[in-house]
Amino acid sequence: MAQENVPDSITLPWASDFHCHLRQGAMMETVTPMVEQGGVKTVLAMPNLTPPLTTTQMAIDYGKQLQLLAPNIHFILTLYLNPALTAEEIKRAAEAGITAVKVYPSGVTTNSDWGVLDFKLYYSTFEAMQSHNMILCLHGECPSDAEKGICILNAEERFLDTLRELHKSFPRLRIVLEHATTKAAVDCVKSLGDTVGCTITAHHLFITVDDWAGQPHHFCKPVAKFPSDRDALREIVTSGHPRFFLGSDSAPHPRSAKQGERPAAGVFTTPVLIPLVATLFERLGCLEKLEGFISTNGRNFYQLPLPTAADGTITLLRSTKLKVPSAYTVKGTDNGANNVPDTVVPFMAGSELAWSIKTD
Amino acid sequence: MAQENVPDSITLPWASDFHCHLRQGAMMETVTPMVEQGGVKTVLAMPNLTPPLTTTQMAIDYGKQLQLLAPNIHFILTLYLNPALTAEEIKRAAEAGITAVKVYPSGVTTNSDWGVLDFKLYYSTFEAMQSHNMILCLHGECPSDAEKGICILNAEERFLDTLRELHKSFPRLRIVLEHATTKAAVDCVKSLGDTVGCTITAHHLFITVDDWAGQPHHFCKPVAKFPSDRDALREIVTSGHPRFFLGSDSAPHPRSAKQGERPAAGVFTTPVLIPLVATLFERLGCLEKLEGFISTNGRNFYQLPLPTAADGTITLLRSTKLKVPSAYTVKGTDNGANNVPDTVVPFMAGSELAWSIKTD
Repeated sequence: MAQENVPDSITLPWASDFHCHLRQGAMMETVTPMVEQGGVKTVLAMPNLTPPLTTTQMAIDYGKQLQLLAPNIHFILTLYLNPALTAEEIKRAAEAGITAVKVYPSGVTTNSDWGVLDFKLYYSTFEAMQSHNMILCLHGECPSDAEKGICILNAEERFLDTLRELHKSFPRLRIVLEHATTKAAVDCVKSLGDTVGCTITAHHLFITVDDWAGQPHHFCKPVAKFPSDRDALREIVTSGHPRFFLGSDSAPHPRSAKQGERPAAGVFTTPVLIPLVATLFERLGCLEKLEGFISTNGRNFYQLPLPTAADGTITLLRSTKLKVPSAYTVKGTDNGANNVPDTVVPFMAGSELAWSIKTD
Repeated sequence: MAQENVPDSITLPWASDFHCHLRQGAMMETVTPMVEQGGVKTVLAMPNLTPPLTTTQMAIDYGKQLQLLAPNIHFILTLYLNPALTAEEIKRAAEAGITAVKVYPSGVTTNSDWGVLDFKLYYSTFEAMQSHNMILCLHGECPSDAEKGICILNAEERFLDTLRELHKSFPRLRIVLEHATTKAAVDCVKSLGDTVGCTITAHHLFITVDDWAGQPHHFCKPVAKFPSDRDALREIVTSGHPRFFLGSDSAPHPRSAKQGERPAAGVFTTPVLIPLVATLFERLGCLEKLEGFISTNGRNFYQLPLPTAADGTITLLRSTKLKVPSAYTVKGTDNGANNVPDTVVPFMAGSELAWSIKTD
């Protein structure tokens, strides 16, 4: 299925990443400037910080920190769904330019301890969001519960009834099911109306369960699943479906937190994001769908203007491979041994990608 | 489902463990003496060493090493299926008292690089084994192959056709499907004849996929799967089915090999094995099935004499909890930092088991 007549270079608008963890402190300072390096100029920053971004003011303050670190980037700010998000606070957030509210079911991933147990409790918030044209970003997994037969392998599929119910109750509310990993999720989103979109990460287009079993740097939530699930993700991006778009869920953790007794969940793709996606799209024979996936589809869904010539472009080169670094230093940290700074390991560390971004 | 009227102590024959990795070198010297500590006096030692035990003489030599380390233990020796196992070599092995031949499909677990790709190539070996009343121990997983939709989650289920085919072709050959992890495997073994047995590990009765995701000390092959699969394992041991019995697949690795970029597969249960199983059986309300699972069922299948009074007993105490050590030192090794010896971390390290073994 390799693509024939692959061009040696492709010029595209800068990409948009509609799901990214930019963290805080030393890690934020390390990874935020890498967004542009990965080919992205619009990035949706996740609010699961410590403490989570629960108020308009917190999100605005966080946005200012990010902007100082990467002045060329357009940051889309989000709030963490919580009881303080009254109709009034939603109005305030919308007026302040905050685009989305993120929902984590309780206990499903990094910093989700404050997550939601019962979505019905937030219906007035969703009502207000719908009125103010805000977007609801869903981490679509049910909490694991062995008594109910729920585990990390079927947690996403089990969540889909909640997605259907939310869409039915708030048909005008734009909802993004994030980081879909299953055929069931892809089929569900396809079956729903135009107000339901879906992000797909770069790494879930590459890996299956076999790749994270015994490889903590590939371990993330939701976990990568069966080959048939990965096939479904690949098929939907190959088809160019307009409601499916890139949300990297790039989630850096220091190496010391990834290698140990309890590896943290998250795959780090920010600095190599678009070369990674281009490499896969060539392999899938769908390079002509790349622009839609990394820019147009998501921007349309988020009702952002499409990039114009004045916004500049990136040129992807096939003649120059990209050697992914084995790790990046996180300045100002300590890995616990002899005052050596900790590092963060990117996806496909040490390997070569078929495409790189032309630099001047 | 907790058991009522649980006795304060239970006296049983010493247990038999029909699948155990006792390793080589420093690790062998550390773990072999722990077999008895775990309540076991008969143990089947796996042949996937470096190099694998491919000849009768190698197995005999290995047995001598083990016996020196644990003079009170009855070691059941096995060979690693390989092209040198001609009908003549099988006869020699049987006459030397070697009980079983282990088959690893290629590439499925630790030291399986020499594994089998095509079972048909070995039909003359199986024929000889059947004639000499030897046992075929199967690591029942197909190698992962994304093109065929095979991954570590369905590798066992996909293998079951091979099991059925082997049983049909060699109906008198005793076959053990080892470390069953799925409802499909349990159902398949139940449906087959009396010459097909099945081992179940202690840890697979406890854990599901959620427990090894992000927890390398719980990561093993085959991987623990869905809650519904664990339920099936628990149901079959609760039922006391005579062809299902304990094979711990205790597989120690140094901590340095479990925590890092590529954690090795294996869960270490040897030193706490029978307290672990007793703790679970109490929870399942089936302590009356404990003796069958840890002794009678397996010994009958392996055609070993049942223990008599002269063989001694173990007494399990409920009044004395067993605190599982956080780790055991592996003498003579080096963890890579400052000449500190490496350690091996047991299952449920640091937690308390409801039962302990009475010591004098």
